[in-house]
Amino acid sequence: MEEGPGAIPHGGDLGAARRLFPEAPEPWIDLSTGINPVPYPLPPFEASALHRLPSPDDLGRLKAAAADAYGAPDADHVAAAPGTQILIETLPRLVPKSHVAVVGPTYAEHAAAWTRGGHAVEVVPDLAGAAGAGVVVAVSPNNPDGRIFSSCDLRRAVAPGGLVVLDQAFADLEEMPPAAPAPGLVVLRSFGKTFGLAGLRLGFALAEPALARRLEAALGPWAVSGPAIAAGVIALPDAGWRREAAAARGHDAARLDRMILRAGGRVIGGTRLFRTATFDDGPGLFRRLGEAGLYVRRFPERPNDLRFGLPLDKAAWCRLSRVLK
Amino acid sequence: MEEGPGAIPHGGDLGAARRLFPEAPEPWIDLSTGINPVPYPLPPFEASALHRLPSPDDLGRLKAAAADAYGAPDADHVAAAPGTQILIETLPRLVPKSHVAVVGPTYAEHAAAWTRGGHAVEVVPDLAGAAGAGVVVAVSPNNPDGRIFSSCDLRRAVAPGGLVVLDQAFADLEEMPPAAPAPGLVVLRSFGKTFGLAGLRLGFALAEPALARRLEAALGPWAVSGPAIAAGVIALPDAGWRREAAAARGHDAARLDRMILRAGGRVIGGTRLFRTATFDDGPGLFRRLGEAGLYVRRFPERPNDLRFGLPLDKAAWCRLSRVLK
Repeated sequence: MEEGPGAIPHGGDLGAARRLFPEAPEPWIDLSTGINPVPYPLPPFEASALHRLPSPDDLGRLKAAAADAYGAPDADHVAAAPGTQILIETLPRLVPKSHVAVVGPTYAEHAAAWTRGGHAVEVVPDLAGAAGAGVVVAVSPNNPDGRIFSSCDLRRAVAPGGLVVLDQAFADLEEMPPAAPAPGLVVLRSFGKTFGLAGLRLGFALAEPALARRLEAALGPWAVSGPAIAAGVIALPDAGWRREAAAARGHDAARLDRMILRAGGRVIGGTRLFRTATFDDGPGLFRRLGEAGLYVRRFPERPNDLRFGLPLDKAAWCRLSRVLK
Repeated sequence: MEEGPGAIPHGGDLGAARRLFPEAPEPWIDLSTGINPVPYPLPPFEASALHRLPSPDDLGRLKAAAADAYGAPDADHVAAAPGTQILIETLPRLVPKSHVAVVGPTYAEHAAAWTRGGHAVEVVPDLAGAAGAGVVVAVSPNNPDGRIFSSCDLRRAVAPGGLVVLDQAFADLEEMPPAAPAPGLVVLRSFGKTFGLAGLRLGFALAEPALARRLEAALGPWAVSGPAIAAGVIALPDAGWRREAAAARGHDAARLDRMILRAGGRVIGGTRLFRTATFDDGPGLFRRLGEAGLYVRRFPERPNDLRFGLPLDKAAWCRLSRVLK
């Protein structure tokens, strides 16, 4: 994506990293995403998850598990999708043309999708700038700076009868109360980031039942794959795993912060799955990391800022430590 | 889906079958879809297919394999999606409001999706009825009656500058030449039906590059899962497997036709993955089959017609044979 005309650069594309640094040692260490590097230990999929069309009953079990895990009243308040990205693409088409305020800088696909949907989009620096908009979009904790926005504050900012989109893609491993469902509030949740299973493509919207049904109708009856349903039904109820993952990734994040500080960086913010920092010479550090086979996320508009995902194992920590010194 | 208000009934929902026939013997035998009952023998997925975001390079390999398998000039003529259903939902939104002729009866989601997209939709019995429409939609071989439509005839029917949508979901195991790509022609192909991997969710649109890119843009960068990409890259180039599957399923289809005839049915048509027949008392036979734990597809508008998928194994053939006698 990095090189496509007009495309939004995304993390996770090691092909782009290899083209930028063809001499770097293999295997590459991908720190360019905020995906949990320690995946949920899934059992092998049953054959039927691959062979059969996912049934409405299977989907119902998945949505019930999601409602429990995310604090929604019931499965009717849940729309399941093959990743939140497609929900971000779909939402703008279901809403009358509005003035949309996206609190940013943030994940760039939000503003792009509302713009593609024909809305008047403004990226505003804070909630004060969003006041009175017909649609207010915020990511909480925000990517890349970790800012937190409460659904109450967002609902106070939006115009009466408007829509609040609260993207909690990185909320699962933080100590945050779930956002209570309310009319005019859509909460997005990402299964793949939390559980380290981004390849499966699974995400959710939590919303009033009428809007949840419209989102599902736009995706059609079998948008979520059998393997994704099977994984969600097993992993979402496992609160113990999630608690231990939050503790372990919090430990990793603190260790990463210490390394960044030692290298002269200033941590702007982040979550337990990524840290964003600013450096005197961001482009130089990006290059030194790349030449060492470490791919981090950079931001074309803020060249001194770099975002670091969490290293998985000792080899990755060591390689990172050798550059960040 | 069968019971939802306004929802289109679909095959494959054994939960609905169990609610209709709570006394039927388990395990149910699902003959209600046209999915190949003998799936492609996939190796286990590599961990990275589950853990990592699918990369643009991975997607490129999948599309190149699809272009080869389906006779498209190159990967630029391919859009990949999590099943063709979501392409059926998406296409009507990318086309100016038109008079749309759907050659039917056929898979009901086509007319429904164009109607939801705000187009003026007419279901016409043949291509003569479609003449001059701005968009002509046909399924070939058609579901459920197996009728064949050539892309040339379709392009002659559509208004100049119009769009032809040719859904070849059931073409892979038939002896049909691939439809040559042409401006204003979109061909849909289903991976899951052919390879018996419907749970993975994988389908393709073959179209001019500009339209293929618009379809992909509407789905976002990671719509297709890692497991689906891995399966496609392995299975699509395997022409030998596909040839053997076509022969074996052709044999099954002929055997099923003989059973239907013996039971007093008249085969209307079908493909190597399903047979559609009409009976003097379709509802009675549907009930006797259901009570024996055999779920076939019925059609609310044509109660004497039933569609049979292919039994997988000896037990399934025997159970079917006991009712069809």
